[in-house]
Amino acid sequence: MIDWIGQVNWMQILFNWGIVVVKLIVLIIIYLIVKSIGQRAIHKAFERKHNQENSVKDDTISLGRKKTLQSIASNIFSYFLLFVFLGIVFELFGLDIKALLAGAGIIGLAIGFGAQGLVSDVVTGFFILLEKQIDVDDYVTLAGYDGIVEEIGLRTTKLRGFDGTLYYIPNREIGSVSNHSRGNMQALVDIAITCDTNIDEAIRTMQQACDTFALTENAIIEGPDVLGVESFDSSNVVLRVICKTKNMEQWNIERKLRKVLKEVLDEIKSD
Amino acid sequence: MIDWIGQVNWMQILFNWGIVVVKLIVLIIIYLIVKSIGQRAIHKAFERKHNQENSVKDDTISLGRKKTLQSIASNIFSYFLLFVFLGIVFELFGLDIKALLAGAGIIGLAIGFGAQGLVSDVVTGFFILLEKQIDVDDYVTLAGYDGIVEEIGLRTTKLRGFDGTLYYIPNREIGSVSNHSRGNMQALVDIAITCDTNIDEAIRTMQQACDTFALTENAIIEGPDVLGVESFDSSNVVLRVICKTKNMEQWNIERKLRKVLKEVLDEIKSD
Amino acid sequence: MIDWIGQVNWMQILFNWGIVVVKLIVLIIIYLIVKSIGQRAIHKAFERKHNQENSVKDDTISLGRKKTLQSIASNIFSYFLLFVFLGIVFELFGLDIKALLAGAGIIGLAIGFGAQGLVSDVVTGFFILLEKQIDVDDYVTLAGYDGIVEEIGLRTTKLRGFDGTLYYIPNREIGSVSNHSRGNMQALVDIAITCDTNIDEAIRTMQQACDTFALTENAIIEGPDVLGVESFDSSNVVLRVICKTKNMEQWNIERKLRKVLKEVLDEIKSD
Amino acid sequence: MIDWIGQVNWMQILFNWGIVVVKLIVLIIIYLIVKSIGQRAIHKAFERKHNQENSVKDDTISLGRKKTLQSIASNIFSYFLLFVFLGIVFELFGLDIKALLAGAGIIGLAIGFGAQGLVSDVVTGFFILLEKQIDVDDYVTLAGYDGIVEEIGLRTTKLRGFDGTLYYIPNREIGSVSNHSRGNMQALVDIAITCDTNIDEAIRTMQQACDTFALTENAIIEGPDVLGVESFDSSNVVLRVICKTKNMEQWNIERKLRKVLKEVLDEIKSD
Amino acid sequence: MIDWIGQVNWMQILFNWGIVVVKLIVLIIIYLIVKSIGQRAIHKAFERKHNQENSVKDDTISLGRKKTLQSIASNIFSYFLLFVFLGIVFELFGLDIKALLAGAGIIGLAIGFGAQGLVSDVVTGFFILLEKQIDVDDYVTLAGYDGIVEEIGLRTTKLRGFDGTLYYIPNREIGSVSNHSRGNMQALVDIAITCDTNIDEAIRTMQQACDTFALTENAIIEGPDVLGVESFDSSNVVLRVICKTKNMEQWNIERKLRKVLKEVLDEIKSD
Amino acid sequence: MIDWIGQVNWMQILFNWGIVVVKLIVLIIIYLIVKSIGQRAIHKAFERKHNQENSVKDDTISLGRKKTLQSIASNIFSYFLLFVFLGIVFELFGLDIKALLAGAGIIGLAIGFGAQGLVSDVVTGFFILLEKQIDVDDYVTLAGYDGIVEEIGLRTTKLRGFDGTLYYIPNREIGSVSNHSRGNMQALVDIAITCDTNIDEAIRTMQQACDTFALTENAIIEGPDVLGVESFDSSNVVLRVICKTKNMEQWNIERKLRKVLKEVLDEIKSD
Amino acid sequence: MIDWIGQVNWMQILFNWGIVVVKLIVLIIIYLIVKSIGQRAIHKAFERKHNQENSVKDDTISLGRKKTLQSIASNIFSYFLLFVFLGIVFELFGLDIKALLAGAGIIGLAIGFGAQGLVSDVVTGFFILLEKQIDVDDYVTLAGYDGIVEEIGLRTTKLRGFDGTLYYIPNREIGSVSNHSRGNMQALVDIAITCDTNIDEAIRTMQQACDTFALTENAIIEGPDVLGVESFDSSNVVLRVICKTKNMEQWNIERKLRKVLKEVLDEIKSD
Repeated sequence: MIDWIGQVNWMQILFNWGIVVVKLIVLIIIYLIVKSIGQRAIHKAFERKHNQENSVKDDTISLGRKKTLQSIASNIFSYFLLFVFLGIVFELFGLDIKALLAGAGIIGLAIGFGAQGLVSDVVTGFFILLEKQIDVDDYVTLAGYDGIVEEIGLRTTKLRGFDGTLYYIPNREIGSVSNHSRGNMQALVDIAITCDTNIDEAIRTMQQACDTFALTENAIIEGPDVLGVESFDSSNVVLRVICKTKNMEQWNIERKLRKVLKEVLDEIKSD
Repeated sequence: MIDWIGQVNWMQILFNWGIVVVKLIVLIIIYLIVKSIGQRAIHKAFERKHNQENSVKDDTISLGRKKTLQSIASNIFSYFLLFVFLGIVFELFGLDIKALLAGAGIIGLAIGFGAQGLVSDVVTGFFILLEKQIDVDDYVTLAGYDGIVEEIGLRTTKLRGFDGTLYYIPNREIGSVSNHSRGNMQALVDIAITCDTNIDEAIRTMQQACDTFALTENAIIEGPDVLGVESFDSSNVVLRVICKTKNMEQWNIERKLRKVLKEVLDEIKSD
Repeated sequence: MIDWIGQVNWMQILFNWGIVVVKLIVLIIIYLIVKSIGQRAIHKAFERKHNQENSVKDDTISLGRKKTLQSIASNIFSYFLLFVFLGIVFELFGLDIKALLAGAGIIGLAIGFGAQGLVSDVVTGFFILLEKQIDVDDYVTLAGYDGIVEEIGLRTTKLRGFDGTLYYIPNREIGSVSNHSRGNMQALVDIAITCDTNIDEAIRTMQQACDTFALTENAIIEGPDVLGVESFDSSNVVLRVICKTKNMEQWNIERKLRKVLKEVLDEIKSD
Repeated sequence: MIDWIGQVNWMQILFNWGIVVVKLIVLIIIYLIVKSIGQRAIHKAFERKHNQENSVKDDTISLGRKKTLQSIASNIFSYFLLFVFLGIVFELFGLDIKALLAGAGIIGLAIGFGAQGLVSDVVTGFFILLEKQIDVDDYVTLAGYDGIVEEIGLRTTKLRGFDGTLYYIPNREIGSVSNHSRGNMQALVDIAITCDTNIDEAIRTMQQACDTFALTENAIIEGPDVLGVESFDSSNVVLRVICKTKNMEQWNIERKLRKVLKEVLDEIKSD
Repeated sequence: MIDWIGQVNWMQILFNWGIVVVKLIVLIIIYLIVKSIGQRAIHKAFERKHNQENSVKDDTISLGRKKTLQSIASNIFSYFLLFVFLGIVFELFGLDIKALLAGAGIIGLAIGFGAQGLVSDVVTGFFILLEKQIDVDDYVTLAGYDGIVEEIGLRTTKLRGFDGTLYYIPNREIGSVSNHSRGNMQALVDIAITCDTNIDEAIRTMQQACDTFALTENAIIEGPDVLGVESFDSSNVVLRVICKTKNMEQWNIERKLRKVLKEVLDEIKSD
Repeated sequence: MIDWIGQVNWMQILFNWGIVVVKLIVLIIIYLIVKSIGQRAIHKAFERKHNQENSVKDDTISLGRKKTLQSIASNIFSYFLLFVFLGIVFELFGLDIKALLAGAGIIGLAIGFGAQGLVSDVVTGFFILLEKQIDVDDYVTLAGYDGIVEEIGLRTTKLRGFDGTLYYIPNREIGSVSNHSRGNMQALVDIAITCDTNIDEAIRTMQQACDTFALTENAIIEGPDVLGVESFDSSNVVLRVICKTKNMEQWNIERKLRKVLKEVLDEIKSD
Repeated sequence: MIDWIGQVNWMQILFNWGIVVVKLIVLIIIYLIVKSIGQRAIHKAFERKHNQENSVKDDTISLGRKKTLQSIASNIFSYFLLFVFLGIVFELFGLDIKALLAGAGIIGLAIGFGAQGLVSDVVTGFFILLEKQIDVDDYVTLAGYDGIVEEIGLRTTKLRGFDGTLYYIPNREIGSVSNHSRGNMQALVDIAITCDTNIDEAIRTMQQACDTFALTENAIIEGPDVLGVESFDSSNVVLRVICKTKNMEQWNIERKLRKVLKEVLDEIKSD
């Protein structure tokens, strides 16, 4: 900025700053245009997906989910764009953003590792919401805990256990999800009869009792069937009975089925 | 700084230093403005959140929590800003902060890995406070330890175990939190009756005893119910009784319920 | 852009911008050509592979698989090319894309670690599809869960468990795949006979019963064979019977075989 | 340093070296000032903290701890400052410290990974001292080992096990600390009575024996209480007795309590 | 490219481009020579190794293996060379390939971590092939699965389990390989005799039965030997019998041996 | 090195090389001085530490340890200094050592990871020697192996197990060290007496036998004490006896104590 | 290379290329000298070590080991030197090897991680050879597998298991080595005698039988000793007998000892 004659060249300085200002204005305009286009694209993409999906289903839950997901996508886009914009502005004024950030590296690395779990939580949470793996009030098994889903957050999911305990599960700890509230369930009862009982007759009597029982219970989808000999040893023969039931009714049906079969067994013995 | 004639160009040097001083002053002003705006924004954000949340609840605990969280957020912001400011100042004087920090890299990397656990502690602790996953005096299960929460710190959480042991748990070891002090609990008693007892009658008698018991105990929210046959083998039929109780009263109710049901069983047998 | 006389050299500026524009046009042309060639190459590669593979097999499933795989390969190629193109354009305008991206480093590193699981899901999912390790309706064991495959996605695979539970398994958790629906299965029954029974005779009688049984069951591929003495102790001699069956019929055959052998055993004893 | 006429410009060289010397002197002065201020700040911070904490407690232990902690903080500060100072000096003489250190990278990386455990030890040790999680002569459980603390070092903690073994535990292996020497402990005895004993009477008799026992033992803080029926099966009813005792007296009280209750039980039976 | 008079210096530009073209041609020639030499070296290395190894053995399998391995080595060499060539060409045209690739860093890092497993598969697969650790139709234990090898791929190895299940095992999950099809196997039978039997006589009788048995079975390599008393308790003395058999015949021999020894034992008792 | 008139400026070249030579000589002098000072400092530090420590103890072992440790410290210092020196020399000749080393990066990274375990071994070995955690002939538990220490190396430690096996344990696998040869050990014997024995009398008789036994054994430091009732069930009451013994005599004392107490018990019964 | 008058300065170009050629020649000479010196140093180091070690021992095995180790060291040195040499040559021609290699980064990183296991194998294998931890025909336990060592390679070690299985163990999976073929082994037999036997007499009789037995067996190094009462319960007293034997004879001695002691016990009972 000082020529070799040693005089300050004011015209040059003004010219340089003029270029900087022009570049800045152009940058801001580009930034605003890109941001606006991006936001609209995100909005339309979710709108379209929402319309396709929800022509049939219950609308209120999916609306809430749509809003949450759209807001996340929109936020990530905004922050990234802002970051890039600020970086270019810094560079325009001759400040090397790289140096500053490399300077922030030691802190950054440590935080990065520490916050890694946080990001992992959010990414997993995002996909749990997007793929609708669990819903509030579903009965699920997550990270080794059984319970009813109370809340699905981006960072933690809350389960209410059978004994009343409230579990806060960081999403990153959720690997495979076992959702027990998607479709009909199977009730399964194993019955041990003594070795000297006639197997054919026992199966026949039990199947009759099962058929009678199926008529009285409308939680049963597919009547209890006696499958056959599951295993046997020197004193007992174990027979297996299975039965398809409405969701969440499987334990109740199992308990009732056990009672019915116990009474049938007592009859067989007393014969 | 020396022209090609070989003479020191004092004017140029003065001019250069003048620019540096002007830049420095501008920097300090910008630094102070950004810091002040940031601090206020943090303060207002917490104020607003505090007002929304605590219109109903007990005010003293949440006030303490608010202060802790606000102080953390404010500190992180201040240190980051200071770091960036110092980086730009170093650069102004022609010192390459990057080189120094890269030089500090071997030490930094080692410390970074070592301190990683520390950061992980603080991040987890921050979210435990923010999401109110545990409170002092809650009965919780953390990292495999059962106990009453004595103190929730940013680095460690202190639990007092049932046998009087004090557990210091680094927050990073806290994954899923099992909080047993959020809402009513379930008491559960499994009773084995002999095989030849009439199941229907046994259930009826036990239910009567349960109903009577429920009247005498006001820690019971939802009367003890005999669910049915949980399992059975050649000699015993196991019946399950569950009962919703006030928080922390579940073990007491379970013990009393066991005594009541034991006496009922003795009656049934002696009949 | 300003010569040492201190005047703005407009001609030079125009010339420079001209070069930039020419370079940009050349770049766009190269970009479009490379993209078009790449896409065609991917298309042809899949077409050829498809033709080789599917001359015999059921065409609809493999068509769906081909489309999914081709679309993935095509997308990855497009995004990578676009990224490289944008980088060169940025550089053309004198913006250092490296700096911006290094600036995005802290965020990027954290996201990178977080999203690592996501990429791992997709890579594993891609190979599961490519190598046809599992198909919809196969009975498989994945990541410790048994079930019928309901859906194979790039990120998650859905299994329907025997008890009706729906498992969402992130592909990265799938290591070794146990596919129980590829070829005939083996039914295996271990029978304990008392120590004082004549082993030779027992084996002979059981083999006869097995042969008779094999005639009545057409799910049996290779008749049940009594292998011999698997183990014995002071009171029992255990004999093993195996039998090759049609896929998914193994449990049914096992149950029937157990019943048949139990009845044979009762006969031997009563002799 | 050689003008275009080809002659050595001695004046310029002298001038350059003069600037370097001036810069060096300024650097050393700044270094000494910053070091002195930093050391004082650390000293005062520890002094103040020490005065607040130790107005009441035993002064000798905390004095030792204060000195250890202050010395660590002071050392880390000194080394870091020295490192930065040397880096700037190297740069002043035109040597790129970055290159050297990058050169030392392969060795450094390997050592870094190897020494990582060492740093992790020191960081954990620092916080164990700072938060007073364990003291010499405490009875604790660390990293799966039970014992009395013999020495707390920055790298290793020494425990003397019950059987006389000396455990050297690297601090990094210490996750959660179970300190059994902080406050009163709970003694717990489970007593099985036969099924046909009258529960009410058994509880009453045992409670009387407990009350009598409590009078003779001054290690008991809160008299032994018979809680009730903990569990029962077909032959036994298990009653639980708990009792708050002075620290480290819990096993002794448990042993005596077991003896007392055994004798009470014998009386009940013989009735 | 514009001198300080402000005129475009066409001659200079042409000269520069000329140099670039010359460099490019030299580069391409060097590239082709290096590639051709490298490919030949790889081919010869495999040829020589093949000739040394296979003078004796079965030629068809090792031919297939040779081709697979040579094709891998050749491909890796080609891709690496192409990559280096493209990098130099990019640099020639003044494009900084480093910047682009650093730009591709975030994506690359994520993919790198995700694809890491893939590379690990291929490296392990390469060595399994090279060291001939397993062959098709070997009976092996890999990653916890027992089975007959159906296919050895670079990414996955397929095992057919005993029950008919097909296991797809990613090579990276293969650590130690247990190959049960390399050489003769040992059959091992433990026989418990009652405590009051004379040990010397029992051993003698059993050895005689073993010797007789060995004559009738040609799958036996080294006759069954009664080793002696393996363990004993108050009621039983356990004797161990081992026997070297042809590969895959060990279970059959074990079963027959058990039957023979069982009959001997019955004789001893009945004496 | 060629002025714009196009003539080679020999004087300038000579001058430049002269500066390089001067710098090189200065460097070598500084290198030698720093090396010599560093070596002396290390020597003195070990000398001083040695003198402090070994005024009392057995001198030969600690002398060997001192030499090993000093040699390690001296080596590390030498190699590091040499590396830095070579780096500066390379730079002096205009060779960018960074580039070379970055070039060696792929190999280096792979080796770095592989050699990481080696460094980890040496670091752990260094501290085991420095802190004297184990000595040759100590009876210790390391990495799950019990045995007598035969040799402590920088990379591996050799243990001789009880059954004669020689264990080579890489130092990195040594986490917590259990040293059973530091101080007196505790012998512990649990004795079960039948339920109907008078507890008070049993304890008294056993204590007498213990006292008598203590007189005959001079390996006992603190006489065997009967602590009291450790546990009891419906048929047995378990009493615990502990006893402090000389190091390595604990098992012998335990065996003798068991014999003595067994005989006492027989007496009590026969009464 | 073109002065501001616009003419090609051929003389300058020639001069530049001349310098490059001179530098190249110097480089090659230095390269050859360093390589030759390094190789000789490695050769001498191994020669010297070999002479020291093998003055006594069996020469053929250690010769093979020496050659393998020397060849590895020599190869690593050669490749490293070649790499550095090529890097300097590339730089000489103005090609930035760093850029190319950074370009190869994505591939390199992925391969690096994948090949990491390979390097880890070689490093471990190198030290197993160097420290002679295992020899061919040793009976060892590695990575959980028991067996006789068949081959020790740089990447894998082959074990022949007791049942004939051949284990291929990647060296990286070898942590602690348990070598059962270094020195004498201990045979250990635990004998349970009934509670009412006189302990003193039983020990005396057993010791006599042991002494007699020791005379007949020359595989015994240190006669079997009855240590005393290892444990006892209400029905049995367990006595321990140990005995030092020749290597690999321990199981045989244990079997014979069991037989002898069993017969002694029968005598005691029949008394």
